Amino acid sequence: MSSTVKALVFDVYGTMFDVLSISEACEEKFPGKGEEVGKTWHSKQMEYLFLHQLMGKYIPFSEVTKEALRFSVKEHAEEELDAAEEQGLFEAFLRLAPYPEVADMLGQLKGKELSVFSNGSHNMLDPLVENAGYTSFFSGIISVDEIKQFKPSLYSYQYLLNKIGLKHEEVLFVSSNNWDVAGAKNFGFQTAWINRKKQTVDELGLDPDFIFDDLTGLLKWK
Amino acid sequence: MSSTVKALVFDVYGTMFDVLSISEACEEKFPGKGEEVGKTWHSKQMEYLFLHQLMGKYIPFSEVTKEALRFSVKEHAEEELDAAEEQGLFEAFLRLAPYPEVADMLGQLKGKELSVFSNGSHNMLDPLVENAGYTSFFSGIISVDEIKQFKPSLYSYQYLLNKIGLKHEEVLFVSSNNWDVAGAKNFGFQTAWINRKKQTVDELGLDPDFIFDDLTGLLKWK
Repeated sequence: MSSTVKALVFDVYGTMFDVLSISEACEEKFPGKGEEVGKTWHSKQMEYLFLHQLMGKYIPFSEVTKEALRFSVKEHAEEELDAAEEQGLFEAFLRLAPYPEVADMLGQLKGKELSVFSNGSHNMLDPLVENAGYTSFFSGIISVDEIKQFKPSLYSYQYLLNKIGLKHEEVLFVSSNNWDVAGAKNFGFQTAWINRKKQTVDELGLDPDFIFDDLTGLLKWK
Repeated sequence: MSSTVKALVFDVYGTMFDVLSISEACEEKFPGKGEEVGKTWHSKQMEYLFLHQLMGKYIPFSEVTKEALRFSVKEHAEEELDAAEEQGLFEAFLRLAPYPEVADMLGQLKGKELSVFSNGSHNMLDPLVENAGYTSFFSGIISVDEIKQFKPSLYSYQYLLNKIGLKHEEVLFVSSNNWDVAGAKNFGFQTAWINRKKQTVDELGLDPDFIFDDLTGLLKWK
């Protein structure tokens, strides 16, 4: 690892796992509409996450995810799911498709200090990482639910730092979400933005320290 | 007015004025791309507003608006504006098109306790309301910039309440932004959602008390 980086911390949704792989389950339930139901579900999930935090009204990510699902189904399919149907679709988030390079990247970084830090609540995060077979790579699977402050609030990253017991600049925070990288940078971490979709970097005055096309870029710290 | 409503408070952007009327100025500067530059400008403006608040990093809305403009121009036109060009486009926000029913609605409510409460900073808000000729209708033009907390934070609505000196339920808060209505409802105001685009109501457990197609719905309080 570079002289100052002592731990790599990974975001989960969009970073290690393709969130839009939920569209497959949506397509089964709503033939011909899976992609639009999935896209709106995810975009509302992010919007509601932010809004709850902004309003000081924390609820676990699993509940946020169900609220967003309800919106998307009402929007695109003009119906209401019963509790069992809702739970069935929700469970798509427990078996999201990992990006192809993740397992090999984690294998090559084995022995390094690696953690996960996510807005996901443990009832979503733990089964997802476990189902993918990644649990043993990480010394910590840390959820904002433990402090009830969503990223990108300062409190959330401070909680992470307390848990891993390092200095700000000793942490390399890795996310494909530009807002998450900006939040981590704002807090004082080193940051790597995984820019899978060649997006334009945000103009928040918080540019990432590193930008990679996918997670193999992290192998420079192996 | 109904028995409990003693004041009507209006959001500005999207509620009284059509934000996407910025596209006209964008089209002049970037022929053939005005609509997409304008749309991304506005959507990033909202995203950055939320992100700054989430990160505890307040900057005035005029600065947020310029950051968002820079992103949109980089995204769609692959160029950078100089300071004069940036200022020129920014000024489109000072002369947004009002929705057609606003002047008559305000005229009919004349004599009622009417205020404006906006995320806009005074250097944007005051000229906009003045240019449209609406200033005299309002007893207060109140900006979050006075407390440096963006809506939908609880602190922002509390500041408004302190300024107008009423009880929560005596305020009817009017906005076309579902998140703003949800925030106002979460704080304890009565709320009217101006749903101009027939959007699906959000699933935040904070449904508006009233939903109208446009601002003429408010004439029931005249």
